[in-house]
Amino acid sequence: MEKSMKKINVQLLLTGNELMSGEIVDSNSAMMAQELKSLGIEITKKTTIADDMDMLVEEIKSITNNADILIINGGLGPTVDDLTAQALAKACNTTIEQHPLALEHLQAWCKQRNATLNKPHLKQAMLPKSCQIIANRTGSAVGFQMMFNDCQIFCTPGVPHELKVILKEQIIPLLSTQIPEDMKVDVTRLQIFGLGESNLQKLIDENLSDWPETLELGFRAGLPLLEVKVTSRTAIACEQKDLWLTKLKALFGDHLISEVINQPLPLAEHVLTLLKAKKLKITTAESCTGGLIASLLTKNPGSSAAFEAAFITYSNKMKSNLLDVESKLIEQHGAVSQATVIAMAKGALKKTSADLVIAVSGVAGPTGGTPDKPIGTVWIAWGSIDNLRSECLCIPGNRTIFQHYVSAIGLDLIRRILIKSEQEPIYIVERRVNKNE
Amino acid sequence: MEKSMKKINVQLLLTGNELMSGEIVDSNSAMMAQELKSLGIEITKKTTIADDMDMLVEEIKSITNNADILIINGGLGPTVDDLTAQALAKACNTTIEQHPLALEHLQAWCKQRNATLNKPHLKQAMLPKSCQIIANRTGSAVGFQMMFNDCQIFCTPGVPHELKVILKEQIIPLLSTQIPEDMKVDVTRLQIFGLGESNLQKLIDENLSDWPETLELGFRAGLPLLEVKVTSRTAIACEQKDLWLTKLKALFGDHLISEVINQPLPLAEHVLTLLKAKKLKITTAESCTGGLIASLLTKNPGSSAAFEAAFITYSNKMKSNLLDVESKLIEQHGAVSQATVIAMAKGALKKTSADLVIAVSGVAGPTGGTPDKPIGTVWIAWGSIDNLRSECLCIPGNRTIFQHYVSAIGLDLIRRILIKSEQEPIYIVERRVNKNE
Repeated sequence: MEKSMKKINVQLLLTGNELMSGEIVDSNSAMMAQELKSLGIEITKKTTIADDMDMLVEEIKSITNNADILIINGGLGPTVDDLTAQALAKACNTTIEQHPLALEHLQAWCKQRNATLNKPHLKQAMLPKSCQIIANRTGSAVGFQMMFNDCQIFCTPGVPHELKVILKEQIIPLLSTQIPEDMKVDVTRLQIFGLGESNLQKLIDENLSDWPETLELGFRAGLPLLEVKVTSRTAIACEQKDLWLTKLKALFGDHLISEVINQPLPLAEHVLTLLKAKKLKITTAESCTGGLIASLLTKNPGSSAAFEAAFITYSNKMKSNLLDVESKLIEQHGAVSQATVIAMAKGALKKTSADLVIAVSGVAGPTGGTPDKPIGTVWIAWGSIDNLRSECLCIPGNRTIFQHYVSAIGLDLIRRILIKSEQEPIYIVERRVNKNE
Repeated sequence: MEKSMKKINVQLLLTGNELMSGEIVDSNSAMMAQELKSLGIEITKKTTIADDMDMLVEEIKSITNNADILIINGGLGPTVDDLTAQALAKACNTTIEQHPLALEHLQAWCKQRNATLNKPHLKQAMLPKSCQIIANRTGSAVGFQMMFNDCQIFCTPGVPHELKVILKEQIIPLLSTQIPEDMKVDVTRLQIFGLGESNLQKLIDENLSDWPETLELGFRAGLPLLEVKVTSRTAIACEQKDLWLTKLKALFGDHLISEVINQPLPLAEHVLTLLKAKKLKITTAESCTGGLIASLLTKNPGSSAAFEAAFITYSNKMKSNLLDVESKLIEQHGAVSQATVIAMAKGALKKTSADLVIAVSGVAGPTGGTPDKPIGTVWIAWGSIDNLRSECLCIPGNRTIFQHYVSAIGLDLIRRILIKSEQEPIYIVERRVNKNE
């Protein structure tokens, strides 16, 4: 089969019983795609198979027949089900032998950890003859590369953080010297919160029906952000892009969270950036989200500049003890009520001297719903002591979706205060429950 | 190509630009694998491609040539890049037409949401001629199925929670009527925390070198749990299993968290189960983990039985204000110190009247490290007021790995108290920093 000279055909082969059996979710291929994108390379096809020698050999042979680059991920470990080196040797009609650099690496790796070099370790030094080592400074398994059938083959470790380092430090720099400049693809990604996918398509159809065909539009519905992607592959498309992007952004208004080229940032990171710019601090008082909002904020490096403390108050007693919510008030209105959530917010502001607060109390499920307050009901209070707002919403779905969506709404409401938005968010309009007391 | 009659060849075809570009991590295929496993079905191969008509048609043709069952996931949405129905029709030499049941479903779906049936919605009713609808009660896109080239093809929505419902309620019950009983595979999974993969392989090699070939052993290194899987495919293997499983479990000692057949539970859920059985309550006082431990606990339904409140105290001032840690003590020893973490633990126990506590204070990075306390240093205090222990560990890796691993260690240390373990965990032995004051 003749290979295309126009577009580089890059394929991934992922191996691992755990990938086929559903015991593990593959995050590696997304990471590889992100890294390759920085070179303007798109992956043509991903194939995932179990740790099976015959299938591995067959796939390697078949893929190298079509692809310019094949990245094999997984199967480099010390255990018996790690077969990549043997399978690759077999597919390429060569043998495996102990590689001196791989052995050196293993010796150093064990020494650093006061561990003894054992037989399973040694298996990781048995590599296809004539392959070249790709250093792995964070794990025991080295990567390696070789050419076969005009295809450049990279073998990479399955452990995500090891793969990340190898990609960034070894493979991407190597490939970047080989990829021609004019292959770059121009991609802009708009992150949106609070508009459904079909609302969004409708908005575009109705307002931008003359959208040019040369500019590719893509959509992705995520939890919680929705993403719109505008891709230009030609010089003409690149020229048109700015104008149409401006129209698109005007259409989205304050639902637009950000415009990025590479990896988008999580919503919490946008909120942190806004908080830091205004030198404001935030706290949370969480019942049904159980610390998720605080955890999303503190995931980000440097979050201490805008975040000092938060409260997780699950029980009524703790709402009173830690946040000074009067127990009478909870008795009278219930834990999931406007009065309680406002008192929680005020308590958290007082105890921490933070400028802004998100307080939530709701019914996450799967039990605890009542006819009056079914599962999915949540009271949110947010803002500052002088401008404290509250809403009761109904967020359907399971416990995980509920906790993530409520957390995202809390963060987005703070974002809207920080950007001084006057638009009412669509999720408030659509999800509001009339429970104002 | 002749199809094998012995083992059912089930293949997945995942479609979506967002799956190829790395903007989304595919969790759907793991979900499908888990569900199919309940029928004893293993997936032979997964192929993932972009929303490209030609590639979709080519892959559908090629897969249906080999597979008995093909599950296509994604591409059913209302937007222009959703191509599954058209591609399938093209590959199967048929046309698409408006399906009356799909239209009915969309009308009902819109009515329930007070939404108007719009053009993008209507696109979702255009399906291959002669296909059969698979109901989707949680989303706008219906699934559908058809036979082609002796292959049963299912088209399923890409939105994970919609897929889950469709699988459980429609596809699995349908397939279960078609799969012969003797195809069941017996799998037992052991979850382990605190042993490295190579330590584990060595333990097995040294102590169970006579492990029978008929019992398949598989390994998976996760964050934080490591999993050992024992698979029996024959009657002989099933007979041997109990004996060898007992030997294996004895080898792992208290590092063994659980033994499961289906989806394993997260570590936090095991801890909650133990707490509930003993009617004990837990609290956390978190600095560097920023609420992650509390969030992992409260993710689980019914966590309120063992969890009332937790504190996230990032700044020194908040450690003093909320947990009564004397500011002098922090000044003298630093925030990341034995004295501070013990005071945090005591403060949290006192304020919440909980029975057990996990308190952590450390340097998560990427900044904040010092020669004395480099990034990755963490003080953990855990236990009850009468039996409060503490250790200083060094957890290398990035911020995310640090936060997750520290949280898992905290939870595991509580688990070991609850099961009255007397073994010293290997992670303490290997990661301990001699900083006792």
